[in-house]
Amino acid sequence: MPDTPRPRQPAEQISELTTARLSLYLRCLEAMDAEGIRTVSSLGLADHCNLNAALVRKDLAYFGEFGVRGVGYFVKHLKRHLKMILGLDRHQQVVILGAGNLGFALADYPGFRAEGFNVVAMLDTDEAKVGTRSKSGVVVCHMRDLEQIVARDHIDIGVLAVPHGAAQAVIDQVIATGVRAILNFARGTLRVPPHVKLKSVDLSVSLESLSYFLAQSGDPNG
Amino acid sequence: MPDTPRPRQPAEQISELTTARLSLYLRCLEAMDAEGIRTVSSLGLADHCNLNAALVRKDLAYFGEFGVRGVGYFVKHLKRHLKMILGLDRHQQVVILGAGNLGFALADYPGFRAEGFNVVAMLDTDEAKVGTRSKSGVVVCHMRDLEQIVARDHIDIGVLAVPHGAAQAVIDQVIATGVRAILNFARGTLRVPPHVKLKSVDLSVSLESLSYFLAQSGDPNG
Repeated sequence: MPDTPRPRQPAEQISELTTARLSLYLRCLEAMDAEGIRTVSSLGLADHCNLNAALVRKDLAYFGEFGVRGVGYFVKHLKRHLKMILGLDRHQQVVILGAGNLGFALADYPGFRAEGFNVVAMLDTDEAKVGTRSKSGVVVCHMRDLEQIVARDHIDIGVLAVPHGAAQAVIDQVIATGVRAILNFARGTLRVPPHVKLKSVDLSVSLESLSYFLAQSGDPNG
Repeated sequence: MPDTPRPRQPAEQISELTTARLSLYLRCLEAMDAEGIRTVSSLGLADHCNLNAALVRKDLAYFGEFGVRGVGYFVKHLKRHLKMILGLDRHQQVVILGAGNLGFALADYPGFRAEGFNVVAMLDTDEAKVGTRSKSGVVVCHMRDLEQIVARDHIDIGVLAVPHGAAQAVIDQVIATGVRAILNFARGTLRVPPHVKLKSVDLSVSLESLSYFLAQSGDPNG
Protein backbone atom coordinates (compact mmCIF):
# COMPACT_ATOMS: atom_id res chain seq x y z
CA MET A 1 0.00 0.00 0.00
CA PRO A 2 1.28 3.47 -0.77
CA ASP A 3 1.01 4.61 2.85
CA THR A 4 3.49 2.09 4.24
CA PRO A 5 6.50 3.99 5.63
CA ARG A 6 9.77 2.85 4.14
CA PRO A 7 13.21 2.75 5.71
CA ARG A 8 15.43 5.76 5.18
CA GLN A 9 18.53 5.42 3.10
CA PRO A 10 22.01 6.41 4.22
CA ALA A 11 22.98 9.94 3.30
CA GLU A 12 26.57 9.57 2.24
CA GLN A 13 26.16 8.44 -1.37
CA ILE A 14 23.49 10.98 -2.27
CA SER A 15 24.93 14.05 -3.91
CA GLU A 16 23.61 17.54 -3.38
CA LEU A 17 22.45 17.48 -6.97
CA THR A 18 20.09 14.63 -6.09
CA THR A 19 18.68 16.37 -3.01
CA ALA A 20 18.16 19.47 -5.18
CA ARG A 21 16.11 17.30 -7.57
CA LEU A 22 14.10 15.89 -4.68
CA SER A 23 13.29 19.48 -3.71
CA LEU A 24 12.24 20.14 -7.29
CA TYR A 25 9.98 17.07 -7.36
CA LEU A 26 8.46 18.21 -4.09
CA ARG A 27 7.68 21.68 -5.56
CA CYS A 28 6.00 20.07 -8.58
CA LEU A 29 3.99 17.67 -6.42
CA GLU A 30 2.85 20.52 -4.16
CA ALA A 31 1.65 22.45 -7.22
CA MET A 32 -0.16 19.34 -8.52
CA ASP A 33 -1.72 18.62 -5.14
CA ALA A 34 -2.96 22.23 -4.94
CA GLU A 35 -4.60 21.73 -8.35
CA GLY A 36 -6.34 18.57 -7.11
CA ILE A 37 -4.27 16.18 -9.26
CA ARG A 38 -4.27 12.76 -7.55
CA THR A 39 -1.79 10.68 -9.58
CA VAL A 40 1.14 11.40 -11.87
CA SER A 41 3.34 9.23 -14.09
CA SER A 42 7.13 9.47 -14.01
CA LEU A 43 6.91 11.00 -17.49
CA GLY A 44 4.39 13.59 -16.28
CA LEU A 45 6.56 14.48 -13.29
CA ALA A 46 9.66 14.61 -15.50
CA ASP A 47 7.96 16.94 -18.01
CA HIS A 48 6.84 19.21 -15.20
CA CYS A 49 10.43 19.40 -13.88
CA ASN A 50 12.23 19.59 -17.26
CA LEU A 51 14.10 16.37 -16.52
CA ASN A 52 14.03 13.00 -18.23
CA ALA A 53 11.71 10.27 -16.98
CA ALA A 54 14.46 7.68 -16.49
CA LEU A 55 16.27 10.01 -14.09
CA VAL A 56 13.07 10.66 -12.13
CA ARG A 57 12.37 6.91 -11.83
CA LYS A 58 15.97 6.24 -10.78
CA ASP A 59 15.95 8.98 -8.12
CA LEU A 60 12.65 7.83 -6.65
CA ALA A 61 13.51 4.13 -6.82
CA TYR A 62 16.65 4.86 -4.84
CA PHE A 63 14.46 6.04 -2.00
CA GLY A 64 12.21 3.00 -2.22
CA GLU A 65 9.42 4.69 -4.19
CA PHE A 66 8.39 2.57 -7.17
CA GLY A 67 4.99 3.88 -8.24
CA VAL A 68 2.05 1.66 -9.17
CA ARG A 69 1.88 0.04 -12.60
CA GLY A 70 -0.77 1.71 -14.77
CA VAL A 71 -1.28 4.48 -12.20
CA GLY A 72 2.08 6.11 -11.59
CA TYR A 73 2.66 7.83 -8.27
CA PHE A 74 0.00 8.96 -5.82
CA VAL A 75 0.69 12.70 -5.54
CA LYS A 76 -0.18 13.12 -1.85
CA HIS A 77 1.71 10.01 -0.85
CA LEU A 78 4.86 10.83 -2.83
CA LYS A 79 4.79 14.39 -1.50
CA ARG A 80 4.63 13.11 2.08
CA HIS A 81 7.39 10.61 1.42
CA LEU A 82 9.72 13.22 -0.10
CA LYS A 83 9.04 15.56 2.83
CA MET A 84 10.08 12.80 5.21
CA ILE A 85 13.27 12.07 3.24
CA LEU A 86 14.12 15.78 3.19
CA GLY A 87 13.53 16.08 6.93
CA LEU A 88 10.53 18.34 6.36
CA ASP A 89 8.06 16.12 8.21
CA ARG A 90 8.77 18.37 11.19
CA HIS A 91 9.54 22.09 11.40
CA GLN A 92 13.22 22.97 11.18
CA GLN A 93 14.28 25.72 13.56
CA VAL A 94 16.46 28.37 11.93
CA VAL A 95 18.44 31.29 13.30
CA ILE A 96 19.92 33.98 11.05
CA LEU A 97 23.35 35.37 11.93
CA GLY A 98 23.57 38.98 10.83
CA ALA A 99 20.76 41.54 10.67
CA GLY A 100 21.85 43.48 7.61
CA ASN A 101 19.81 43.75 4.40
CA LEU A 102 20.49 40.11 3.58
CA GLY A 103 19.51 38.93 7.07
CA PHE A 104 16.25 40.87 6.90
CA ALA A 105 15.55 39.65 3.36
CA LEU A 106 16.08 36.03 4.45
CA ALA A 107 13.98 36.51 7.61
CA ASP A 108 11.06 37.54 5.42
CA TYR A 109 11.74 35.09 2.56
CA PRO A 110 8.29 33.53 2.03
CA GLY A 111 9.73 30.23 0.79
CA PHE A 112 11.32 29.32 4.11
CA ARG A 113 8.08 29.27 6.08
CA ALA A 114 6.16 27.64 3.21
CA GLU A 115 8.62 24.73 3.18
CA GLY A 116 8.56 24.21 6.94
CA PHE A 117 11.50 26.31 8.12
CA ASN A 118 10.79 28.42 11.17
CA VAL A 119 13.02 31.49 11.43
CA VAL A 120 13.25 32.10 15.16
CA ALA A 121 15.46 35.19 15.31
CA MET A 122 18.18 37.27 13.67
CA LEU A 123 21.33 37.83 15.73
CA ASP A 124 23.59 40.85 15.47
CA THR A 125 26.16 42.68 17.56
CA ASP A 126 24.71 46.12 16.69
CA GLU A 127 22.86 47.27 19.83
CA ALA A 128 20.83 49.74 17.75
CA LYS A 129 19.24 46.85 15.84
CA VAL A 130 18.51 44.62 18.84
CA GLY A 131 14.76 44.50 19.56
CA THR A 132 13.71 45.63 16.07
CA ARG A 133 11.69 43.26 13.90
CA SER A 134 11.46 42.33 10.24
CA LYS A 135 8.19 42.91 8.34
CA SER A 136 7.11 39.34 9.04
CA GLY A 137 7.91 39.78 12.74
CA VAL A 138 11.31 38.10 13.15
CA VAL A 139 13.08 39.83 16.05
CA VAL A 140 16.75 40.89 16.20
CA CYS A 141 18.56 39.57 19.30
CA HIS A 142 22.11 40.22 20.47
CA MET A 143 24.81 37.77 19.45
CA ARG A 144 25.66 37.29 23.12
CA ASP A 145 22.33 35.47 23.50
CA LEU A 146 23.22 32.94 20.78
CA GLU A 147 23.84 29.97 23.08
CA GLN A 148 20.66 30.57 25.05
CA ILE A 149 18.52 30.90 21.90
CA VAL A 150 19.99 27.75 20.31
CA ALA A 151 19.19 25.77 23.46
CA ARG A 152 15.77 27.31 24.10
CA ASP A 153 14.48 27.07 20.53
CA HIS A 154 16.23 23.80 19.58
CA ILE A 155 17.94 25.46 16.60
CA ASP A 156 18.71 23.04 13.76
CA ILE A 157 20.23 25.36 11.17
CA GLY A 158 22.23 28.56 11.31
CA VAL A 159 22.12 30.91 8.30
CA LEU A 160 25.25 33.01 7.94
CA ALA A 161 24.44 36.47 6.56
CA VAL A 162 27.45 38.42 7.84
CA PRO A 163 30.25 40.04 5.82
CA HIS A 164 33.15 37.82 4.78
CA GLY A 165 35.50 39.28 7.38
CA ALA A 166 33.26 38.22 10.28
CA ALA A 167 32.17 34.87 8.87
CA GLN A 168 34.74 32.48 10.37
CA ALA A 169 34.43 33.95 13.87
CA VAL A 170 30.63 33.78 13.76
CA ILE A 171 30.54 30.27 12.32
CA ASP A 172 32.91 29.11 15.09
CA GLN A 173 30.55 30.57 17.71
CA VAL A 174 27.54 28.88 16.14
CA ILE A 175 29.25 25.48 15.94
CA ALA A 176 30.33 25.79 19.57
CA THR A 177 26.65 25.87 20.57
CA GLY A 178 26.09 22.48 18.92
CA VAL A 179 24.45 23.54 15.64
CA ARG A 180 25.45 21.01 12.95
CA ALA A 181 24.08 22.55 9.74
CA ILE A 182 24.99 25.94 8.34
CA LEU A 183 23.83 27.79 5.25
CA ASN A 184 26.45 30.34 4.31
CA PHE A 185 26.06 33.40 2.09
CA ALA A 186 29.53 34.85 2.76
CA ARG A 187 32.20 34.47 0.10
CA GLY A 188 35.49 32.70 0.58
CA THR A 189 36.50 29.48 2.28
CA LEU A 190 35.27 28.66 5.79
CA ARG A 191 36.59 25.86 8.01
CA VAL A 192 34.15 23.59 9.83
CA PRO A 193 34.75 20.33 11.73
CA PRO A 194 33.79 17.06 9.98
CA HIS A 195 30.53 16.55 11.89
CA VAL A 196 29.16 19.89 10.63
CA LYS A 197 27.48 20.29 7.24
CA LEU A 198 28.27 23.62 5.59
CA LYS A 199 26.39 24.64 2.47
CA SER A 200 27.59 27.80 0.78
CA VAL A 201 25.38 29.72 -1.61
CA ASP A 202 27.21 31.63 -4.31
CA LEU A 203 24.67 33.86 -6.02
CA SER A 204 27.16 34.76 -8.76
CA VAL A 205 26.88 31.21 -10.11
CA SER A 206 23.25 31.87 -11.04
CA LEU A 207 24.21 35.09 -12.81
CA GLU A 208 26.98 33.24 -14.62
CA SER A 209 24.54 30.72 -16.08
CA LEU A 210 22.72 33.73 -17.56
CA SER A 211 25.86 35.37 -18.90
CA TYR A 212 26.76 31.98 -20.40
CA PHE A 213 23.39 31.93 -22.15
CA LEU A 214 23.93 35.45 -23.49
CA ALA A 215 27.50 34.71 -24.63
CA GLN A 216 26.54 31.51 -26.42
CA SER A 217 23.29 32.68 -27.98
CA GLY A 218 24.85 35.84 -29.41
CA ASP A 219 24.13 39.31 -28.16
CA PRO A 220 22.04 41.29 -30.65
CA ASN A 221 23.27 44.50 -28.99
CA GLY A 222 26.86 43.43 -28.89
CA MET B 1 49.95 26.82 -27.62
CA PRO B 2 47.70 27.41 -24.66
CA ASP B 3 46.80 30.94 -25.73
CA THR B 4 45.12 29.99 -29.00
CA PRO B 5 41.44 30.97 -28.82
CA ARG B 6 39.10 28.09 -29.53
CA PRO B 7 35.67 28.13 -31.12
CA ARG B 8 32.68 28.39 -28.81
CA GLN B 9 30.30 25.50 -28.56
CA PRO B 10 26.55 25.75 -29.02
CA ALA B 11 24.62 26.38 -25.80
CA GLU B 12 21.63 24.15 -26.21
CA GLN B 13 23.04 20.81 -25.04
CA ILE B 14 24.80 22.17 -21.97
CA SER B 15 22.73 21.79 -18.85
CA GLU B 16 22.68 24.33 -16.07
CA LEU B 17 24.44 21.77 -13.90
CA THR B 18 27.41 21.93 -16.28
CA THR B 19 27.55 25.72 -16.28
CA ALA B 20 27.40 25.61 -12.48
CA ARG B 21 30.45 23.30 -12.53
CA LEU B 22 32.26 25.67 -14.90
CA SER B 23 31.64 28.43 -12.36
CA LEU B 24 33.03 26.17 -9.66
CA TYR B 25 36.17 25.41 -11.70
CA LEU B 26 36.59 29.12 -12.28
CA ARG B 27 36.41 29.83 -8.51
CA CYS B 28 39.05 27.17 -7.84
CA LEU B 29 41.32 28.46 -10.60
CA GLU B 30 41.00 32.02 -9.30
CA ALA B 31 42.03 30.85 -5.84
CA MET B 32 44.98 28.91 -7.30
CA ASP B 33 46.05 31.85 -9.45
CA ALA B 34 45.94 34.12 -6.39
CA GLU B 35 48.24 31.65 -4.61
CA GLY B 36 50.69 31.74 -7.54
CA ILE B 37 49.96 28.17 -8.70
CA ARG B 38 50.82 27.93 -12.41
CA THR B 39 49.58 24.48 -13.46
CA VAL B 40 47.04 21.98 -12.17
CA SER B 41 46.17 18.39 -13.11
CA SER B 42 42.57 17.32 -13.70
CA LEU B 43 42.88 15.29 -10.49
CA GLY B 44 44.12 18.33 -8.56
CA LEU B 45 41.29 20.47 -9.89
CA ALA B 46 38.78 17.69 -9.15
CA ASP B 47 40.01 17.33 -5.56
CA HIS B 48 39.79 21.07 -5.06
CA CYS B 49 36.17 21.05 -6.30
CA ASN B 50 35.06 17.79 -4.61
CA LEU B 51 34.27 16.24 -8.01
CA ASN B 52 35.78 13.27 -9.80
CA ALA B 53 38.62 13.76 -12.26
CA ALA B 54 36.83 12.02 -15.17
CA LEU B 55 33.95 14.48 -14.91
CA VAL B 56 36.34 17.45 -14.88
CA ARG B 57 38.17 16.15 -17.95
CA LYS B 58 34.88 15.50 -19.75
CA ASP B 59 33.51 18.98 -18.97
CA LEU B 60 36.68 20.72 -20.10
CA ALA B 61 37.17 18.53 -23.18
CA TYR B 62 33.64 19.45 -24.26
CA PHE B 63 34.77 23.06 -24.45
CA GLY B 64 37.91 22.18 -26.38
CA GLU B 65 40.27 22.31 -23.42
CA PHE B 66 42.48 19.23 -23.28
CA GLY B 67 45.37 20.13 -21.00
CA VAL B 68 48.98 19.26 -21.73
CA ARG B 69 50.30 15.75 -21.13
CA GLY B 70 52.59 15.66 -18.09
CA VAL B 71 51.69 19.25 -17.16
CA GLY B 72 47.91 19.41 -16.78
CA TYR B 73 46.21 22.72 -17.31
CA PHE B 74 47.84 26.14 -17.25
CA VAL B 75 45.88 27.92 -14.50
CA LYS B 76 45.87 31.41 -16.03
CA HIS B 77 44.98 30.14 -19.45
CA LEU B 78 42.17 27.85 -18.31
CA LYS B 79 40.80 30.65 -16.12
CA ARG B 80 40.72 33.02 -19.09
CA HIS B 81 39.14 30.37 -21.29
CA LEU B 82 36.37 29.59 -18.77
CA LYS B 83 35.68 33.30 -18.36
CA MET B 84 35.22 33.59 -22.10
CA ILE B 85 32.88 30.58 -22.21
CA LEU B 86 30.84 32.01 -19.32
CA GLY B 87 30.59 35.39 -21.04
CA LEU B 88 32.71 37.01 -18.33
CA ASP B 89 35.39 38.28 -20.69
CA ARG B 90 33.45 41.55 -20.63
CA HIS B 91 31.44 43.22 -17.85
CA GLN B 92 27.79 42.23 -17.72
CA GLN B 93 25.46 45.12 -16.99
CA VAL B 94 22.84 44.32 -14.35
CA VAL B 95 19.79 46.15 -13.09
CA ILE B 96 17.92 45.10 -9.94
CA LEU B 97 14.14 45.34 -9.93
CA GLY B 98 12.92 46.08 -6.42
CA ALA B 99 14.69 48.11 -3.73
CA GLY B 100 13.58 46.17 -0.66
CA ASN B 101 15.96 44.37 1.70
CA LEU B 102 16.71 41.74 -0.94
CA GLY B 103 17.38 44.35 -3.64
CA PHE B 104 19.77 46.23 -1.36
CA ALA B 105 21.47 42.99 -0.28
CA LEU B 106 22.00 42.01 -3.92
CA ALA B 107 23.20 45.50 -4.88
CA ASP B 108 25.97 45.18 -2.28
CA TYR B 109 26.69 41.47 -2.83
CA PRO B 110 30.50 41.43 -3.17
CA GLY B 111 30.48 38.37 -5.44
CA PHE B 112 28.72 40.12 -8.29
CA ARG B 113 31.36 42.79 -8.81
CA ALA B 114 34.20 40.33 -8.21
CA GLU B 115 32.94 38.10 -11.02
CA GLY B 116 32.46 40.93 -13.51
CA PHE B 117 28.83 41.90 -12.98
CA ASN B 118 28.22 45.62 -12.82
CA VAL B 119 25.08 46.54 -10.88
CA VAL B 120 23.97 49.80 -12.49
CA ALA B 121 20.86 50.63 -10.45
CA MET B 122 17.94 49.39 -8.38
CA LEU B 123 14.48 50.26 -9.64
CA ASP B 124 11.42 50.74 -7.46
CA THR B 125 8.03 52.45 -7.59
CA ASP B 126 8.39 53.87 -4.06
CA GLU B 127 9.14 57.59 -4.51
CA ALA B 128 10.57 57.74 -0.97
CA LYS B 129 13.36 55.34 -1.97
CA VAL B 130 14.24 56.98 -5.29
CA GLY B 131 17.61 58.75 -5.08
CA THR B 132 18.83 56.79 -2.06
CA ARG B 133 21.90 54.59 -2.41
CA SER B 134 23.10 51.22 -1.12
CA LYS B 135 26.26 51.06 1.00
CA SER B 136 28.35 50.30 -2.08
CA GLY B 137 26.77 53.25 -3.90
CA VAL B 138 24.12 51.66 -6.14
CA VAL B 139 21.36 54.23 -6.66
CA VAL B 140 17.60 53.64 -6.57
CA CYS B 141 15.80 54.93 -9.67
CA HIS B 142 12.08 55.01 -10.44
CA MET B 143 10.59 52.12 -12.37
CA ARG B 144 9.29 54.59 -14.93
CA ASP B 145 12.91 55.15 -16.02
CA LEU B 146 13.44 51.44 -16.76
CA GLU B 147 13.44 51.70 -20.54
CA GLN B 148 15.81 54.65 -20.56
CA ILE B 149 18.26 52.93 -18.15
CA VAL B 150 18.25 49.69 -20.12
CA ALA B 151 19.07 51.57 -23.32
CA ARG B 152 21.60 53.98 -21.77
CA ASP B 153 23.53 51.37 -19.76
CA HIS B 154 23.18 48.47 -22.22
CA ILE B 155 21.61 46.26 -19.55
CA ASP B 156 22.23 42.55 -20.11
CA ILE B 157 20.53 41.01 -17.08
CA GLY B 158 17.56 41.97 -14.92
CA VAL B 159 17.43 40.67 -11.35
CA LEU B 160 13.90 40.35 -10.02
CA ALA B 161 13.74 41.12 -6.28
CA VAL B 162 10.08 42.11 -5.96
CA PRO B 163 7.32 40.29 -4.04
CA HIS B 164 5.57 37.42 -5.82
CA GLY B 165 2.42 39.46 -6.47
CA ALA B 166 4.31 42.05 -8.53
CA ALA B 167 6.73 39.68 -10.27
CA GLN B 168 4.87 38.90 -13.52
CA ALA B 169 4.01 42.55 -14.20
CA VAL B 170 7.59 43.66 -13.58
CA ILE B 171 9.13 40.85 -15.64
CA ASP B 172 6.82 41.76 -18.54
CA GLN B 173 8.01 45.37 -18.34
CA VAL B 174 11.67 44.29 -18.31
CA ILE B 175 11.26 41.95 -21.26
CA ALA B 176 9.49 44.70 -23.22
CA THR B 177 12.69 46.76 -23.02
CA GLY B 178 14.65 44.00 -24.79
CA VAL B 179 16.41 42.38 -21.80
CA ARG B 180 16.82 38.65 -22.57
CA ALA B 181 18.16 37.23 -19.30
CA ILE B 182 16.44 37.40 -15.93
CA LEU B 183 17.46 36.15 -12.52
CA ASN B 184 14.35 35.71 -10.40
CA PHE B 185 14.10 35.49 -6.61
CA ALA B 186 10.28 35.57 -6.44
CA ARG B 187 8.44 32.34 -5.76
CA GLY B 188 5.89 30.79 -8.10
CA THR B 189 5.73 30.30 -11.84
CA LEU B 190 6.51 33.19 -14.20
CA ARG B 191 5.80 33.23 -17.94
CA VAL B 192 8.48 34.44 -20.36
CA PRO B 193 8.69 34.24 -24.15
CA PRO B 194 10.99 31.59 -25.69
CA HIS B 195 13.80 34.00 -26.55
CA VAL B 196 14.19 35.00 -22.89
CA LYS B 197 16.23 32.99 -20.39
CA LEU B 198 14.69 32.97 -16.92
CA LYS B 199 16.66 31.53 -14.01
CA SER B 200 14.80 31.26 -10.74
CA VAL B 201 16.64 30.96 -7.44
CA ASP B 202 14.80 29.04 -4.73
CA LEU B 203 16.73 29.57 -1.51
CA SER B 204 14.64 26.94 0.27
CA VAL B 205 16.33 24.24 -1.83
CA SER B 206 19.63 25.02 -0.11
CA LEU B 207 18.01 24.78 3.32
CA GLU B 208 16.40 21.49 2.29
CA SER B 209 19.76 19.93 1.49
CA LEU B 210 20.74 20.76 5.09
CA SER B 211 17.53 19.39 6.60
CA TYR B 212 18.10 16.27 4.49
CA PHE B 213 21.55 15.94 6.02
CA LEU B 214 20.14 16.35 9.54
CA ALA B 215 17.30 13.88 8.90
CA GLN B 216 19.60 11.22 7.46
CA SER B 217 22.49 11.60 9.87
CA GLY B 218 20.26 11.41 12.95
CA ASP B 219 19.55 14.31 15.24
CA PRO B 220 21.33 13.92 18.58
CA ASN B 221 18.84 16.38 20.10
CA GLY B 222 15.85 14.72 18.96
